Amino acid sequence: MKPHITIITLGVKDLQRSINFYENGLNLPRKEGPEGIAFFKMTGTMLSLYPRDKLAEDISISAEGAGFQGFTLAHNVASLSEVDQTLEEAVAAGAELVKPGQKVFWGGYSGYFRDPDGFYWEIAHNPFL
Amino acid sequence: MKPHITIITLGVKDLQRSINFYENGLNLPRKEGPEGIAFFKMTGTMLSLYPRDKLAEDISISAEGAGFQGFTLAHNVASLSEVDQTLEEAVAAGAELVKPGQKVFWGGYSGYFRDPDGFYWEIAHNPFL
Repeated sequence: MKPHITIITLGVKDLQRSINFYENGLNLPRKEGPEGIAFFKMTGTMLSLYPRDKLAEDISISAEGAGFQGFTLAHNVASLSEVDQTLEEAVAAGAELVKPGQKVFWGGYSGYFRDPDGFYWEIAHNPFL
Repeated sequence: MKPHITIITLGVKDLQRSINFYENGLNLPRKEGPEGIAFFKMTGTMLSLYPRDKLAEDISISAEGAGFQGFTLAHNVASLSEVDQTLEEAVAAGAELVKPGQKVFWGGYSGYFRDPDGFYWEIAHNPFL
């Protein structure tokens, strides 16, 4: 397999609420596309939002599931203050602050927010990068 | 927030099993790094594997969770036969074939495999790209 992830699709409960959060709240650039799904043009892997039930249906599995979804998305920024600022921006957009920006064991500074569907984003500054 | 996902981290039950799957089974290029975590150099967002318990601890939440994890990773390839071939490669590496390659409603051809921790990868060919 070639080392490339084309798209990360988040299965969401309320597509319009999630579009509002990512497009209007976090100012991610939405791509034009068909109704019923949203794509955001990112410099790395593309982000997509799709109703959770339909995503499970596309895989052909049950949509049932609860608790920690077992993964995180990390967004790296250039400074400590940009970590705090990005977390504030997310909270203003409707995210929940889970872990405020703080020095972490690997030598950087990071915090986490939870999006409207319970997906975790780490906002991090890594001074070694 | 700038439109960039730096890393997607999958929280895994058995780190060595998952490293075997992605590094030896799928031939993803592993980056050198500290013990206890694995990074794979991808052309898009970087993939990382980290024990699920420790990932939850890092966020400061409970690791409890079950069922569909609510997201998918898509890997696009250049042809229909490459979809089938990549799914076979994943199965040979220990993945479970969930949905064999088939024509899908949006006009492409895709299938899904499930990795050792139940994460879903879509292998897709999109003739419109």
